[in-house]
Amino acid sequence: MVRVGIVGATGYAGAELVRILSGHPQVELSILTSRQFAGVKFDRVYPALAGCVNLTCEELDVETVCERAEIVFLALPHQLPMTLVPQFLERGVRVVDLSADFRFNDAAVYESAYQPHTARGLLDQAVYGLSEIYAEAIRSADLIGNPGCYPTSALLPLIPLVRENLLNPDTVVVDSKSGVSGAGRSLAITSHYCEANESFKAYKVASHRHNPEMNYILGRETGRPVELTFVPHLVPMSRGMLTTIYASLNRNLKEADIRSCLQNTYAKRAFIRLCPAGRVPDTLHVKGTNFCDIGLQLDHSNNRLIVISAIDNLVKGAAGQAVQNMNIMLGLDETSGLNPVPYPL
Amino acid sequence: MVRVGIVGATGYAGAELVRILSGHPQVELSILTSRQFAGVKFDRVYPALAGCVNLTCEELDVETVCERAEIVFLALPHQLPMTLVPQFLERGVRVVDLSADFRFNDAAVYESAYQPHTARGLLDQAVYGLSEIYAEAIRSADLIGNPGCYPTSALLPLIPLVRENLLNPDTVVVDSKSGVSGAGRSLAITSHYCEANESFKAYKVASHRHNPEMNYILGRETGRPVELTFVPHLVPMSRGMLTTIYASLNRNLKEADIRSCLQNTYAKRAFIRLCPAGRVPDTLHVKGTNFCDIGLQLDHSNNRLIVISAIDNLVKGAAGQAVQNMNIMLGLDETSGLNPVPYPL
Amino acid sequence: MVRVGIVGATGYAGAELVRILSGHPQVELSILTSRQFAGVKFDRVYPALAGCVNLTCEELDVETVCERAEIVFLALPHQLPMTLVPQFLERGVRVVDLSADFRFNDAAVYESAYQPHTARGLLDQAVYGLSEIYAEAIRSADLIGNPGCYPTSALLPLIPLVRENLLNPDTVVVDSKSGVSGAGRSLAITSHYCEANESFKAYKVASHRHNPEMNYILGRETGRPVELTFVPHLVPMSRGMLTTIYASLNRNLKEADIRSCLQNTYAKRAFIRLCPAGRVPDTLHVKGTNFCDIGLQLDHSNNRLIVISAIDNLVKGAAGQAVQNMNIMLGLDETSGLNPVPYPL
Amino acid sequence: MVRVGIVGATGYAGAELVRILSGHPQVELSILTSRQFAGVKFDRVYPALAGCVNLTCEELDVETVCERAEIVFLALPHQLPMTLVPQFLERGVRVVDLSADFRFNDAAVYESAYQPHTARGLLDQAVYGLSEIYAEAIRSADLIGNPGCYPTSALLPLIPLVRENLLNPDTVVVDSKSGVSGAGRSLAITSHYCEANESFKAYKVASHRHNPEMNYILGRETGRPVELTFVPHLVPMSRGMLTTIYASLNRNLKEADIRSCLQNTYAKRAFIRLCPAGRVPDTLHVKGTNFCDIGLQLDHSNNRLIVISAIDNLVKGAAGQAVQNMNIMLGLDETSGLNPVPYPL
Repeated sequence: MVRVGIVGATGYAGAELVRILSGHPQVELSILTSRQFAGVKFDRVYPALAGCVNLTCEELDVETVCERAEIVFLALPHQLPMTLVPQFLERGVRVVDLSADFRFNDAAVYESAYQPHTARGLLDQAVYGLSEIYAEAIRSADLIGNPGCYPTSALLPLIPLVRENLLNPDTVVVDSKSGVSGAGRSLAITSHYCEANESFKAYKVASHRHNPEMNYILGRETGRPVELTFVPHLVPMSRGMLTTIYASLNRNLKEADIRSCLQNTYAKRAFIRLCPAGRVPDTLHVKGTNFCDIGLQLDHSNNRLIVISAIDNLVKGAAGQAVQNMNIMLGLDETSGLNPVPYPL
Repeated sequence: MVRVGIVGATGYAGAELVRILSGHPQVELSILTSRQFAGVKFDRVYPALAGCVNLTCEELDVETVCERAEIVFLALPHQLPMTLVPQFLERGVRVVDLSADFRFNDAAVYESAYQPHTARGLLDQAVYGLSEIYAEAIRSADLIGNPGCYPTSALLPLIPLVRENLLNPDTVVVDSKSGVSGAGRSLAITSHYCEANESFKAYKVASHRHNPEMNYILGRETGRPVELTFVPHLVPMSRGMLTTIYASLNRNLKEADIRSCLQNTYAKRAFIRLCPAGRVPDTLHVKGTNFCDIGLQLDHSNNRLIVISAIDNLVKGAAGQAVQNMNIMLGLDETSGLNPVPYPL
Repeated sequence: MVRVGIVGATGYAGAELVRILSGHPQVELSILTSRQFAGVKFDRVYPALAGCVNLTCEELDVETVCERAEIVFLALPHQLPMTLVPQFLERGVRVVDLSADFRFNDAAVYESAYQPHTARGLLDQAVYGLSEIYAEAIRSADLIGNPGCYPTSALLPLIPLVRENLLNPDTVVVDSKSGVSGAGRSLAITSHYCEANESFKAYKVASHRHNPEMNYILGRETGRPVELTFVPHLVPMSRGMLTTIYASLNRNLKEADIRSCLQNTYAKRAFIRLCPAGRVPDTLHVKGTNFCDIGLQLDHSNNRLIVISAIDNLVKGAAGQAVQNMNIMLGLDETSGLNPVPYPL
Repeated sequence: MVRVGIVGATGYAGAELVRILSGHPQVELSILTSRQFAGVKFDRVYPALAGCVNLTCEELDVETVCERAEIVFLALPHQLPMTLVPQFLERGVRVVDLSADFRFNDAAVYESAYQPHTARGLLDQAVYGLSEIYAEAIRSADLIGNPGCYPTSALLPLIPLVRENLLNPDTVVVDSKSGVSGAGRSLAITSHYCEANESFKAYKVASHRHNPEMNYILGRETGRPVELTFVPHLVPMSRGMLTTIYASLNRNLKEADIRSCLQNTYAKRAFIRLCPAGRVPDTLHVKGTNFCDIGLQLDHSNNRLIVISAIDNLVKGAAGQAVQNMNIMLGLDETSGLNPVPYPL
């Protein structure tokens, strides 16, 4: 059993990590930290897990964490991890960081979207944890920058297509819709029940920090700058993310060509499900799972491709992919602990 | 008092017409027809209106309707109105038809999206009832083809912009999200509570019949064929429609230029609210109202415009706009009966 | 036009007062105060009302309010009104207080549930504003203690029955279910979207402060102490309150006897709708209205009566009833400003 | 591996059985039948399970089922199972029936609530499958009448209390609230999204068929007729059931006495979680699980006990308890296949 710890265990992504890891057959969940709930039993914060998780939240103390864990998940707001990661790595503890701090190898890009980076020296060794795409590099990494939820939903369908040069990156529009859990457990008026219920709205239009993240990764893949347009929206539901992507094709292609490209890339990947023609992804079908469902359709009238992906923002968009990355890092089956049968509704 | 009738009063759009017209100060709601509920008091079908509406639903009989009403609303599935409208017009009764049957002056376009048209002779005199845009023609019309909900939400922001040639119609992507009431009162698995709740999905991707409707109207406005891409989605909420529109600008424009164009067009129109910079439309803010809220944002990185509109699909997207058209036809204030103060939540 | 003011205009009850009063034909809404949003235009806090309400929120200054308003609504947390009400009354301004401060004529009862009362001298003249029951006293009152939402939903059906001694008050169980707006606009984890959505739970079991309020009023009506059992629950919806009441009948009565009693009491009251046999109240049918729908059923197997009421907690349960009380105080039709046609859904 | 079959696999209870059994470590799910979807792959009906369940629905043929399964679950409307069960038992196949057909040993009681019973001869050997209470009898049973969802939620807390004669059965009121999935997958206007959303209502007031089921079981336990009052309500959420029970205590007891009684009964039962004092059950905490959370509170003012239970209506209220019963029948750990870690939200 590998001993693992979670730093920041009581936010929604942290709690989802607790759920997955406490049911993981090759892992012992050995320490949970939480600033807000230090000293409180985890199941008092999340009573759903009463009888299933017996740990008590602790104040973060790096030494203690390193004594008890061989690998640690950081589920913290950005800017904190960059101060912690060096301490964990020095002590030989591998890190999966769910914040943005280690998603960019280029500090300048990070800094233009966030703030000064104080651990630039580690950026080179950090691996972007888009599991299906970068499994090779993840395997030997000590530090994973776990992707943002929106980038995960957009990049999984886009990367195979841009790698084969099927579409024009300059024409890409990413219209994403997220359940409210994406805004986290911190109280805010936009997550207040009566403001979110029966409400559908965009936010951070063309100014969300996941936009540079997508641009950066796609730019690296295509070898030239990408400036896609990204608009996130908030859906009155707890979990789930649907991303509708529009792009002009580079040449006259058939829907089958696009489908083949994705099929070839993902044929052996357990968590990618390509919808048969005529079926579209639905967040309900991936709720609580690590699946990414992908559907596609050609708009023949203007040779524009529409690709749609659905994920659970807290699982494949955060904690699930983080555990998938841990599995890869540890040489385990990548699905380990991540394959409870999905709920039919 | 003008006597008005509603044919098809027990569907959601019909019931919304009942609500608005029974509170309209210059109108007497004199007859309701319903195939399914003939003989049943309207407030047994919609108990919310008990004590407010005392009519009993009747079988449709054109003669009876024409005796009792000077103007009639048809809230029926397409294909039925084309058989009824000639009978109403012959008897001197003006018609606002909420179906698609009289939205196209060109029968061929209608027939390519629907089925053969049996009242082609009336298409020339039918006026597309996008109230703010075509008020002049509506005023003297005897037959209104009331716009679809999606086209209303997309055309109100788009027409002023294409009229001034600010954007490239070939680049237009319309990503719309609708509450479940858009699917109507007829039972269907997609409107079954447990299938729609906690679910977000696209449907009729690039194949919805409102797509040719938008193309047709925009084509007429620009004088050349338009083939925009349109994807509708279903949101787990009862009412509301948000449409996010993406388009490349024709030249280097500032956000203020776009804003001016819309401001100039809609400055005096009571139902169009332009959101100040930094605010985005939210379906919650237009729920139950005839407002169309419009917000906009330039993606400077790629000179792409993002325009967002919010309407209540049953009001501005159907019954409200129909009554607004009736007001215009009757020479009344266009807001008459349509301005209850909105709910704060 | 009567000039009215709202103190605490940006909470949910306050905002609902703004909605109703700004559409009220005999009223001019002349001043809004808000501690949190002083200096901010009201429609920036509630954008739904953009173009409909043009007031800017102000700091509370009693003199200013009294110059501009003849009657004032207090939509504040309890304990604040008892310091303000004396100042308003001294200056000849009548008050409808939506808090609990003036609901009890007996300071000891108030103090056992809340905290010391600092305006005991006014309790005698305060009238409990359950409009349909105490209209006579409300008419000439200068100070109304507007009922709590739960007591409104329970007392409207119960008072006529206990007045005729039809049921045994010792057996009364009140099981209430409220939409989340009842918890107000203040941020709290129980109103956080992901905690309230897909969740149904009780809270303050047999310890809610509305329990002594019901006991007190029923005790006054019956002339002896009443100790009913009350459990409130939270429903994942924005608005609405359903209250299911259980009580043993005092003697062998038929359902028709109970029905007659309620019918006789409420026959001429515009806002009470008695459901015909076989129909049950539904919060959806009263959403956004000042109606209280009441249904009843006898459990013949054990001679227990079940009465069910539905209200909109923010309207009949708060702002609507407050305006109804103002109408009565001013000698207006009690429905004035309160009768927009309800939405069918 | 025990081979099991599901008859009626595409309703909501059936689909939930598919989910649980296809992840059960000691079971091979070998046959699914569905009248409506015969010939269709199960994952086309429930795309969430794509890649997880590979079976195709078949027409029901008893011989085929008996060849392929040693134990069979019937998830059918009542009245059908009574014709099928004899055929299965004759062929040596054990049955867990989720309908009401075999919940009553007394045909007269069944027939007064349902319709004539055509397999009366089997009623004696049928065991009521309330797992925690009747485990002994379940172990050796060939035929289980799986309890209704409402009775499960009420009887689990009530039976220990009436067995110790702590409360007066004549005073019991059961006020239950269920998510919409309880109404099943069949289309109906009450399950239509816009009718159920933002709506809370009672239904079948004091006339639901689960009322006689509770009366019958409690009567058997107490040895005298019980006529409790039961009112079910519909909550706008997919899954979950909260039941609030009111009853007068038989003598002056403390909350601790009641708590001890339940604690003693359920101390070793994995699926019953007694909430510590001050905490109340929440359907969100049991969603997707086989747990029954129980909380209690004394209303000291009138010596009335309030007990609240929360279950997932599709799991502990149907499919989960059915599998728990199968586990007991097969001598497996009763939690087998039923203990995925719960979701924190």
